[in-house]
Amino acid sequence: MYTPNHFNENDQEFIKKLVSQNPLGTIVSIHGVELEATHIPFMMEDNKIIGHIARANPFTNMDGQDCLVIFQGNNAYISPSFYPTKHIHHKEVPTWNYSAVHFYGKIKIINDKAEILKIISDLTDKHEQVFENPWKVSDAPNDYIEKLLNAIVGIEILIEKTVAKSKLSQNKSDENKNGVIAGLESMGINPQNLVR
Amino acid sequence: MYTPNHFNENDQEFIKKLVSQNPLGTIVSIHGVELEATHIPFMMEDNKIIGHIARANPFTNMDGQDCLVIFQGNNAYISPSFYPTKHIHHKEVPTWNYSAVHFYGKIKIINDKAEILKIISDLTDKHEQVFENPWKVSDAPNDYIEKLLNAIVGIEILIEKTVAKSKLSQNKSDENKNGVIAGLESMGINPQNLVR
Repeated sequence: MYTPNHFNENDQEFIKKLVSQNPLGTIVSIHGVELEATHIPFMMEDNKIIGHIARANPFTNMDGQDCLVIFQGNNAYISPSFYPTKHIHHKEVPTWNYSAVHFYGKIKIINDKAEILKIISDLTDKHEQVFENPWKVSDAPNDYIEKLLNAIVGIEILIEKTVAKSKLSQNKSDENKNGVIAGLESMGINPQNLVR
Repeated sequence: MYTPNHFNENDQEFIKKLVSQNPLGTIVSIHGVELEATHIPFMMEDNKIIGHIARANPFTNMDGQDCLVIFQGNNAYISPSFYPTKHIHHKEVPTWNYSAVHFYGKIKIINDKAEILKIISDLTDKHEQVFENPWKVSDAPNDYIEKLLNAIVGIEILIEKTVAKSKLSQNKSDENKNGVIAGLESMGINPQNLVR
């Protein structure tokens, strides 16, 4: 990912938070002669990202292959009109604020049923924690879950390299950053995670 | 992208709308021995997607190469608790609703300054149309725009193949779809584009 120094993101907390808030990652690898991509809700644990896919997904057969997993944060068009200084010197152009995390690593496919059950239970617990009465995998009938476990595999990527970028007006003056926040709000867009 | 028949998306209007509403595409190609990806705000015109990148972006040197461009629509965790039928037979599990469009084609890099100016003007006009007083490229000083034009190139992908998926509860009963809408709303999530 093209990342000028001032947009390079090294803050591990920022990276973890982006993945946690935008867990639907896009995994990309090469399948035969073609680029293949699929969208997977991942959870990050230490230096791994973990999820599950349908057994019929071509990625099931890509164990050991190199891959890239992409997470995109919130993003929005930024009008030059948002910048107070624009009205003085007019030397501003539109841009797009966004952040993204790219993880490189190898695909590991997990066929062990106990491990797959742990993955779906952990993922469920993570996403259910916001509810007053969290649903648990054990709420479903055993034979129903057993059948589902036959239809999926676990997928794990040990992160070998991270490239992260936040392009969130951090190269702008406080005056212009505040202008961006006000401008986004005037469009009904929550500026959270869009200005840094 | 793994796409069971019932989630396969052939509706061209749906595809165009997804790209228009989520224009920050992720372009992926192979750079040397590694997968390379960058995020670009695209506009779709007929069977092309068009944008611009910094001249320093490695994709500038990838003219003629095969690529995949990915657009992700809104997405959200769907709790089994959202389904009214869950409370009867309990045979439901969590899922993730999302939609995505994958375009395959070849990278075309545009160096002609008049063409690049047209691209940035068209992109600007598209995104400024929501404002009462749209900013125009011609609002900035000529020499300022001239300098910027030297720093960017245009990028165009002629779409050779489209793979699109919408996984938006369309395999669920109306009763359960309405439950998903109500459940998302109860979490403060706008269900628009999350249920089909």
